[in-house]
Amino acid sequence: MPPAPDIRIPLDVPPEEQERYRENYRTITHGTGRLMLFAGDQKIEHLNDDFYGEGIHPDDADPEHLFRIASRARIGVFATQLGMIARYGGDYRDVPYLVKLNSKTNLVGTSQRDPLSSELHLVRQAVDLRDRTGLSILGVGYTVYLGSEYEAMMLYQAAQIINNAHHNGLITVLWMYPRGKAVKDERDPHLVAGAAGVAATLGSDFAKVNPPKVGKSVDAALLREAVAAAGRTGVVCAGGSHADMPEFLQQLHDQIHIGGTVGNATGRNIHQRSLEEAVRFCNAISAITLDDASVEEANEICTGGRC
Amino acid sequence: MPPAPDIRIPLDVPPEEQERYRENYRTITHGTGRLMLFAGDQKIEHLNDDFYGEGIHPDDADPEHLFRIASRARIGVFATQLGMIARYGGDYRDVPYLVKLNSKTNLVGTSQRDPLSSELHLVRQAVDLRDRTGLSILGVGYTVYLGSEYEAMMLYQAAQIINNAHHNGLITVLWMYPRGKAVKDERDPHLVAGAAGVAATLGSDFAKVNPPKVGKSVDAALLREAVAAAGRTGVVCAGGSHADMPEFLQQLHDQIHIGGTVGNATGRNIHQRSLEEAVRFCNAISAITLDDASVEEANEICTGGRC
Amino acid sequence: MPPAPDIRIPLDVPPEEQERYRENYRTITHGTGRLMLFAGDQKIEHLNDDFYGEGIHPDDADPEHLFRIASRARIGVFATQLGMIARYGGDYRDVPYLVKLNSKTNLVGTSQRDPLSSELHLVRQAVDLRDRTGLSILGVGYTVYLGSEYEAMMLYQAAQIINNAHHNGLITVLWMYPRGKAVKDERDPHLVAGAAGVAATLGSDFAKVNPPKVGKSVDAALLREAVAAAGRTGVVCAGGSHADMPEFLQQLHDQIHIGGTVGNATGRNIHQRSLEEAVRFCNAISAITLDDASVEEANEICTGGRC
Amino acid sequence: MPPAPDIRIPLDVPPEEQERYRENYRTITHGTGRLMLFAGDQKIEHLNDDFYGEGIHPDDADPEHLFRIASRARIGVFATQLGMIARYGGDYRDVPYLVKLNSKTNLVGTSQRDPLSSELHLVRQAVDLRDRTGLSILGVGYTVYLGSEYEAMMLYQAAQIINNAHHNGLITVLWMYPRGKAVKDERDPHLVAGAAGVAATLGSDFAKVNPPKVGKSVDAALLREAVAAAGRTGVVCAGGSHADMPEFLQQLHDQIHIGGTVGNATGRNIHQRSLEEAVRFCNAISAITLDDASVEEANEICTGGRC
Amino acid sequence: MPPAPDIRIPLDVPPEEQERYRENYRTITHGTGRLMLFAGDQKIEHLNDDFYGEGIHPDDADPEHLFRIASRARIGVFATQLGMIARYGGDYRDVPYLVKLNSKTNLVGTSQRDPLSSELHLVRQAVDLRDRTGLSILGVGYTVYLGSEYEAMMLYQAAQIINNAHHNGLITVLWMYPRGKAVKDERDPHLVAGAAGVAATLGSDFAKVNPPKVGKSVDAALLREAVAAAGRTGVVCAGGSHADMPEFLQQLHDQIHIGGTVGNATGRNIHQRSLEEAVRFCNAISAITLDDASVEEANEICTGGRC
Repeated sequence: MPPAPDIRIPLDVPPEEQERYRENYRTITHGTGRLMLFAGDQKIEHLNDDFYGEGIHPDDADPEHLFRIASRARIGVFATQLGMIARYGGDYRDVPYLVKLNSKTNLVGTSQRDPLSSELHLVRQAVDLRDRTGLSILGVGYTVYLGSEYEAMMLYQAAQIINNAHHNGLITVLWMYPRGKAVKDERDPHLVAGAAGVAATLGSDFAKVNPPKVGKSVDAALLREAVAAAGRTGVVCAGGSHADMPEFLQQLHDQIHIGGTVGNATGRNIHQRSLEEAVRFCNAISAITLDDASVEEANEICTGGRC
Repeated sequence: MPPAPDIRIPLDVPPEEQERYRENYRTITHGTGRLMLFAGDQKIEHLNDDFYGEGIHPDDADPEHLFRIASRARIGVFATQLGMIARYGGDYRDVPYLVKLNSKTNLVGTSQRDPLSSELHLVRQAVDLRDRTGLSILGVGYTVYLGSEYEAMMLYQAAQIINNAHHNGLITVLWMYPRGKAVKDERDPHLVAGAAGVAATLGSDFAKVNPPKVGKSVDAALLREAVAAAGRTGVVCAGGSHADMPEFLQQLHDQIHIGGTVGNATGRNIHQRSLEEAVRFCNAISAITLDDASVEEANEICTGGRC
Repeated sequence: MPPAPDIRIPLDVPPEEQERYRENYRTITHGTGRLMLFAGDQKIEHLNDDFYGEGIHPDDADPEHLFRIASRARIGVFATQLGMIARYGGDYRDVPYLVKLNSKTNLVGTSQRDPLSSELHLVRQAVDLRDRTGLSILGVGYTVYLGSEYEAMMLYQAAQIINNAHHNGLITVLWMYPRGKAVKDERDPHLVAGAAGVAATLGSDFAKVNPPKVGKSVDAALLREAVAAAGRTGVVCAGGSHADMPEFLQQLHDQIHIGGTVGNATGRNIHQRSLEEAVRFCNAISAITLDDASVEEANEICTGGRC
Repeated sequence: MPPAPDIRIPLDVPPEEQERYRENYRTITHGTGRLMLFAGDQKIEHLNDDFYGEGIHPDDADPEHLFRIASRARIGVFATQLGMIARYGGDYRDVPYLVKLNSKTNLVGTSQRDPLSSELHLVRQAVDLRDRTGLSILGVGYTVYLGSEYEAMMLYQAAQIINNAHHNGLITVLWMYPRGKAVKDERDPHLVAGAAGVAATLGSDFAKVNPPKVGKSVDAALLREAVAAAGRTGVVCAGGSHADMPEFLQQLHDQIHIGGTVGNATGRNIHQRSLEEAVRFCNAISAITLDDASVEEANEICTGGRC
Repeated sequence: MPPAPDIRIPLDVPPEEQERYRENYRTITHGTGRLMLFAGDQKIEHLNDDFYGEGIHPDDADPEHLFRIASRARIGVFATQLGMIARYGGDYRDVPYLVKLNSKTNLVGTSQRDPLSSELHLVRQAVDLRDRTGLSILGVGYTVYLGSEYEAMMLYQAAQIINNAHHNGLITVLWMYPRGKAVKDERDPHLVAGAAGVAATLGSDFAKVNPPKVGKSVDAALLREAVAAAGRTGVVCAGGSHADMPEFLQQLHDQIHIGGTVGNATGRNIHQRSLEEAVRFCNAISAITLDDASVEEANEICTGGRC
């Protein structure tokens, strides 16, 4: 288990919300400073591609699958849109939620037009839902496409969201994706580090980045530049490839112990499985992330790698 | 008759509006969970094409025709713009209304510019009209063109409308249409399912989709992916072709009993007839939708298919 | 004289403004339901083209000419911009005013860029001026260019203006002009009818359309589709050609008695004359519009057609 | 000296601000109805081109030069941006100020993109500065580029500024410049008249236009159409060419006495001189504008034309 | 040491904030009227290029490096984004901060699209942070790209920020950069002077400009035009080249004593060094800026130029 870190509360959290922020941070990281984010926000981003088709378990066709996993597995936080939380949250009151505030579909490609993902809901609306229903809404998330011609709008919304979220005691996660006609290599380690640094500059608690690559080669050590650039902002990363679960877990372990990340954000790799497998896989990920489990221990949680 | 479902009230409906939401939902679905939406919002969308010309009954030239049908036929809700409701609603106080909040004309085609349909009226204005006049304004509707370059604005407005509508106890219907230069096949079942899933993610109560097709072939079973993707959001669908009424009713029956939809949204197929025929045809549609009538029973309501 | 119609008050007029709306409607239509709108809003739209040059009486060079006509002639309402009313209204307190809320110049043609005419003043500002000065500001007007790439913005502003105007007891007139690269034939009767229907859908009291044509032929009967499509929204129309006054009056008579319109909106044909002639011509138009005078009687008001 | 005109207060000036408006009008016109506007707003519009270089006196390099002139010369009002007034106004409390509310640089030419000059400061901020500091802020100014593709935004801002300024007792001056790809000849007398008419329609107290030309020929009589079109809105005009001062003064005299303008707006021709010369030249201009001095008398103020 | 100047408080600082403005100005200039601005806002602008790579000390990879320097060195003010201040400011309470309010990445080049850097945070949010935490937030900064097609938006935001900042007693610095397709030579002395003049016109306390060049030649005397154009707005300038520290210090000395600037804004040249060297180099810069030290004295602070 990683040592429980002191929680540094950023100064844009007002005194009356500091205890809530601290509790949210502790809950979301299980007291470890590490984050296991279960991402369930792809129904807009990828339409039904991630939920139905060859190689995807039929359980995943129903959006409630996401809530069942989130409810039964060991996770840090479940990220999805406000409308979904409003619809299912009453039956899944135990789930720790993070409201993903923006999303776009993948229909308009970058070659047609640079990506623009605008706020769907306001921090205030997430706070209202939390305060009125007592749901565990612990944080908010937002995606920034750096290098898009619409970058200015997203940087503004991101900065405002962080400021507003902290004013309400919420934890923030920025998905930092370089993308657009101007971006030649989205996975370039130096560019990924720059993106992580932007998240730090905007004051986010966590930055989610894609694993950097040089050519086709992924190497967890390539993350170190990003982790350094992010400073006190924790870097979380997507796991590895889908094909090979032991390899996925190995990569996650490397990201943390070689790359210096503080966790992971994983979606499809979890929810495209049956409920049982998804839960076990979540738990394996959490064991590495939250308990400093070895890859072998994690594989065992998946029952010999068959998760 | 389909079993009366429990009504699940989404969490963005505050306690003081929950009873109203429940009543609105019950009224709009006749207590069945099924929706027969009579669509009368085409005067902007299609200008006068749907109301005047060959094969259209002269009754349809006058906008009041829509109100006469809505008043005399058995429907779930009549969808039209606020200006029309303000003008005719005083004489048609018995009609259950849904305010369609956005509309655009069909003059600018997708090849010229991607579709943008912006709010005309605000939820607040629909609520004001309801509260001041006592009209049965039970819901609001909004069209999203997924894949348009202006998608971001429409997703934002849709999300906000749902949140605001629920805060005021109103039911929401999203018309989910993939459209734009980036959209190759608007009727692709997988894309239609994605669109239905977006409506669920935004938290809408109902999603209206066009019937999916593979090539030229419509098959009600193709709807199942969309129905699954929509989860607790009810999918309603346009009926079949105009030419053949028994076929229309058969397709509607199949959509519900094979495809799993919870109803229909029908406009031109109803209002392009004389008042008498339109009313009978509405009633036939409602028999299938609300009473689980057979196609034969429904045809009889149309007096042997001549409706 | 046409029979005095019952005045139907739209439901977006709140109870405390209904008496004012009724009075405004009665005043603006002289109790007849017919509208003689004297249009004096072209100084932005046409710059100085309508006011100075060959064939235009020198009186028209001075903007006060418009007020002199409006003050001395029998009209329903004088439409002009708020800035003009603020400047001259103190000396012309007897004139019934309609504030034209948007305008654009004609410098940028459709081939360069689709038309965009945005609000200049807000309904609130017209109401403030009315309430503070006691001027007879009875209504507001707005132009919508259907088929423009900027249609969405104008439809939104139009809908909002109508809602706000009715909330303040004001009568509304929409100028409905199909225009833009996508519009092949602005005078097509079916398209004009569609435009009239949009005004009805937005809830306007009156819609001003240009006379429909098939090829080069104007025929008042072509207006019937528009009149039907507009339902309870009164259609008013520009008069006929400038060259021949008896023909102008005949066309107006035909528009009302064959086409079914409820009046006219006339500008240049009036104000490009000397004050005396303009007043007589106004009165002739009003005789046809408000008194059901024959063309012959109207011609006589113009003193044998020389108006 | 021209006869002191009655001051007509526009109706958008509320009763509690009428006395202030009257005083501002009287002060700004020295009780004559004529306006000598000293324009010092070019540091954004022309960057440093007007202030430094060959043929420009070194005094002009320092922005305080403008305030020194405004303080020592006889002017109606000194137009400059709010930031400059805030910085220097404390040392030049005797100067009558007009806050120029918008400005753009000349870097992006019309061939690249049509001109857009947006508000920098709000009327409210000018009013706050006036009310808090007791500075003589008597009016506000705004430039409209008619025929620009961004015309709609500028017309809206201009209309709103006039309405707000009048609500606060301030005098308004619109710089009316036809400009953009659609504008073939910015100096066409008919177009200049149209521009003056737009200022009248928006309700401005004064309209500044460039002197109309036919081909290369300037003729003060060409202004008459604009003066007529502007009605009760006073037309002021840039003076003549820079090269020849007696000619400049002759042209100004002609503009007033032949063209019918009520004054001038002069910038570079004044401030590019030494303080002494600039003051004398200002006074010469004011003699013609405010005292109906002859050109000869004005030349003498410049000490034999060497001003 | 330069003589302590009288502090002129601009009139947009209200009386209740004048003492704070005076204190902020005194603190930020160490009572000298000169400004040593340590720029740490490049993590958005240059992503990780300035912080990691060949020739950059490893200390610079961590954002806290900036705060360590700012805390230990003698500076006027440390400029960085609000999110960074919120994250680290609690541990660096002694640092004088300036909140840089806008930023963009360098991914989209001017050849693709003109630069647009929009507000990230509002002045109000900087003020809230100051008032709630007691941090020494003394000023705000904003970059304007003159000549960009988006110039209008940036000029508006800059003008508003200055007005709002002064209303709250804050000092303002504008980064004035001509940039965009329309800008041929960003370093042209006349253009740089124009940019400095715009900052003065907007009312900023300081303008940061890049050192003007004629061809490849930098000459401090070229700054004089800008210094004159800026009037009472103090011009600060980037230092010289990175390669040669004595040359850097010589250039800074020349800028002040030949060019007439009141200081410098330096970032990479400081923070790309180890903490020790960075602190010494800062102190050397401050000696020249704040104490009128000679280049030799400054070099000695760097220990013989090895800083």
